[in-house]
Amino acid sequence: MDMTNLDKHISSQFNEELERLRTMFLTMGGIVEEQLSNAIKAAVDSDSKLAHEVMAAGVKVNTLEKRIDAECNRIIVRRQPTAGDLRLMHVILKAVSDLERVGDEAERIAAVAMDTFSGTQQTNLLSSLESMGRHVLTVLHDTLDAFSRMDSETAATIHLEDKKIDREYESVMRLLMTYMMEDPRSIPKVLNVVWAARSLERIGDRCQNITEFVIFLVKGIDVRHTDFKQVHEEARGNKQKGLEG
Amino acid sequence: MDMTNLDKHISSQFNEELERLRTMFLTMGGIVEEQLSNAIKAAVDSDSKLAHEVMAAGVKVNTLEKRIDAECNRIIVRRQPTAGDLRLMHVILKAVSDLERVGDEAERIAAVAMDTFSGTQQTNLLSSLESMGRHVLTVLHDTLDAFSRMDSETAATIHLEDKKIDREYESVMRLLMTYMMEDPRSIPKVLNVVWAARSLERIGDRCQNITEFVIFLVKGIDVRHTDFKQVHEEARGNKQKGLEG
Repeated sequence: MDMTNLDKHISSQFNEELERLRTMFLTMGGIVEEQLSNAIKAAVDSDSKLAHEVMAAGVKVNTLEKRIDAECNRIIVRRQPTAGDLRLMHVILKAVSDLERVGDEAERIAAVAMDTFSGTQQTNLLSSLESMGRHVLTVLHDTLDAFSRMDSETAATIHLEDKKIDREYESVMRLLMTYMMEDPRSIPKVLNVVWAARSLERIGDRCQNITEFVIFLVKGIDVRHTDFKQVHEEARGNKQKGLEG
Repeated sequence: MDMTNLDKHISSQFNEELERLRTMFLTMGGIVEEQLSNAIKAAVDSDSKLAHEVMAAGVKVNTLEKRIDAECNRIIVRRQPTAGDLRLMHVILKAVSDLERVGDEAERIAAVAMDTFSGTQQTNLLSSLESMGRHVLTVLHDTLDAFSRMDSETAATIHLEDKKIDREYESVMRLLMTYMMEDPRSIPKVLNVVWAARSLERIGDRCQNITEFVIFLVKGIDVRHTDFKQVHEEARGNKQKGLEG
């Protein structure tokens, strides 16, 4: 590449801007991860104070989402980036929406804790969520980690976890259905737990979206709506392929 | 604006490209609208053939989503648009994800029809969805219409409808809960209808997102995570304000 000093200077400023954007995204990811961790804890321990903290953190997440979007826009207008850098910004624009909605689902889970914390034998019900919750939290953590390291192989591995989360969801749902059928008066309470389980399942979907974006960034191939096997082949294939632009 | 002939030529080609992008988005919107309409009909009439059609249309929606994303990228790299045009493209990038997920929810509703079409007294249950479904369908239609006409005032009016959809959802849910409590054996079947109701409620949220994007495009103000009153003031305020860029 042919670069004058001026170009170099601009390019290094530009790199700083991209780096700042990435950092903002990961900061947002960190807050959302903490929201989810606290939401699960709040639900399982029926801790309404912690649930309130999850809600409060939503404001920070929303503000970061808007700031990141505006920053992407500003960088594109000022820097007129190449296709490769633009791809990063478009992925961030999209992934930030997924991340914000993970935060929303975490708030929904926390709301469950607030609705039911007065309950007593509720604890049994909520603990059925705990192992699924821990799994989803790990998936979110690993997803953000794969993003920060731009690691498409790890992204492809996490992508597979969603099937497992779906199976866990099915079994939690079967259990909750049994509770409801055995004690119909419990239905409204159990339904709250049903929503929390469903929110966890949705978070799994969101993480899957983000892993697809990581693969897109590293490989330049849009693997959305592609079958699992193909996603894995693309993610593990020749790392150079598709990187042009 | 100071324009040479070359600029004019480029600008008119550029306008054609933007127009094509808008058309692709609205085409995708039309397919999703048909998916939702068919999904509701399939669920209410327990029509599994129609439900299959809804699923099949999902492939077209996914393909369009990928094409629109790629086209946005291509246009930005080739045209290096101004802030105003870029805003349109970023909104399309985001709104296309919302639209694709409306299609996903429609497929979920259709799946309900496939799961339950063997049922007989199921009809009562499903018809409780019908009026909510019709409402959500109107909201989706009006949202796409506001987008196509870039009408921020209509967008703000539709934005308010989501509160009504939420209330309808609450009352459908109360009804479904009564069914479950009266006849616990019906729980698995009723839960299918619960999912469909929840999907409708989510579609309302998606439409609300898209109306916020329309307001952003017309007014240049990001009204996401803003309270309703403020959204309306912004959308109905001085049309020139915030249009620069």
